[in-house]
Amino acid sequence: MTDEAAPPEVDHESELPRDHPRYQSLLTRHRIEEGVEKGITSTQGLIAEGRGEAFDYLLGEETLPSADAAARAAAAHLLLAEHPVLSVNGNVAALVPAEIVDLAEATDADIEVNLFNRTEERMGAIADHLREHGADEVKGLAADGRIPGLNHERAKVDADGIGAADVVLVPLEDGDRAESLGELGKTEIVVDLNPMSRSPRMAAVPVIDNIIRAVPNITRHARELADAPRGELERIVEGFDSEAALRDAERAIREGDLGKRDGKDQE
Amino acid sequence: MTDEAAPPEVDHESELPRDHPRYQSLLTRHRIEEGVEKGITSTQGLIAEGRGEAFDYLLGEETLPSADAAARAAAAHLLLAEHPVLSVNGNVAALVPAEIVDLAEATDADIEVNLFNRTEERMGAIADHLREHGADEVKGLAADGRIPGLNHERAKVDADGIGAADVVLVPLEDGDRAESLGELGKTEIVVDLNPMSRSPRMAAVPVIDNIIRAVPNITRHARELADAPRGELERIVEGFDSEAALRDAERAIREGDLGKRDGKDQE
Repeated sequence: MTDEAAPPEVDHESELPRDHPRYQSLLTRHRIEEGVEKGITSTQGLIAEGRGEAFDYLLGEETLPSADAAARAAAAHLLLAEHPVLSVNGNVAALVPAEIVDLAEATDADIEVNLFNRTEERMGAIADHLREHGADEVKGLAADGRIPGLNHERAKVDADGIGAADVVLVPLEDGDRAESLGELGKTEIVVDLNPMSRSPRMAAVPVIDNIIRAVPNITRHARELADAPRGELERIVEGFDSEAALRDAERAIREGDLGKRDGKDQE
Repeated sequence: MTDEAAPPEVDHESELPRDHPRYQSLLTRHRIEEGVEKGITSTQGLIAEGRGEAFDYLLGEETLPSADAAARAAAAHLLLAEHPVLSVNGNVAALVPAEIVDLAEATDADIEVNLFNRTEERMGAIADHLREHGADEVKGLAADGRIPGLNHERAKVDADGIGAADVVLVPLEDGDRAESLGELGKTEIVVDLNPMSRSPRMAAVPVIDNIIRAVPNITRHARELADAPRGELERIVEGFDSEAALRDAERAIREGDLGKRDGKDQE
């Protein structure tokens, strides 16, 4: 976590040194910079990325066992769903485009772009970016449905996408939208690094983890559980305790051994 | 702390409602957006702002008594200095331009622009922005001095500015530069919200506080101490315990009552 540190000058992320102790951080920076160049990442998205970095630093930049359990419950929910949808905003598209496509394939879910500050340009840039990373169909552009309780632009969804979904993965979502989706009776899976924020507190399954680790992890669980009987998936869903997961993440932020992180390049 | 929340559409910050419970946050967002428009704030600066927001949230978004003591010690150092300099980067210029000019006046300090990613365009935009906020002279453009131990662009300083300074305020500085300045024997005052990061740990005076609160607070102390005898200023400097201030801020981050912040608009 380096203030103002520029990522190495590489044209493609495959050039980043995978054995670098800060590989994940370099990869994140590279994808964010690419997102800025492509008009995917917004000013507020960059600030949100920084907030996430700080919480991830306090969490030790690793997936807690409770976050792994949440990822497994998320996979079970997506596999049990009639109509699962993965909601994608600017930071999600910039940070995990191919990983979202993988997860959609593993769970037979739709991908829908949904922005807090919606502009047709950004919608188009994000849909293009997802297609470049293997997405066949990207929803969100029809915008022929509405979520009650939100103002005009933020309320827009596709009627046959989030509008018709029973389970929605809403990574990095804002609290108002998370609340409104919950009131519609949709099961929400939220990925967020701040366990005290409103959207994970609203979620059936809060995954308190970095999205760059969480999305591939949910996919891994979904592939493992692909042939599991519904009874087993239902037991995983019922056995998951969201309150305990939130408490555990907050405890990790509070009590983590920061001293051990001093060797890292953190400003 | 709202994910992706846009600041209200106002042309000038005087239009922001001062009695709003989130006034400081709205003001910060407004100034950052203005910084982006003017080419002052960089991509990495926006991410750094987000990291700061997360730590400030954990600190309770208020100035700790230990941070106030640090601000007083910083004021005493600046008043005792032969040649104090306030180092300004993109985020500092965007967030506290008039406040830096006030502090320079109160302590008879030079203002010098110093960027991690130096470009002549950003240097010029920042110098213009500071002059619009009342700065007479802005150093950093001559770049006729060097700090040993840093690579070419980051090493540049003005020979009669930071090059000749005995006390330097380096808010939001990166760790390498903070270390190199310290090795030159300069007394460093660092403003940073992460007490675990390297630059405040290097500083004679780490002020663990939001820059938007810390800079005016140092100015207030400097005005109060303007006529104090040198002996009193020296006692304040000697009585300040930087290790204790860092420990206190870390404790506040660890043990702060997050529950009480739930009412705030935090995502």
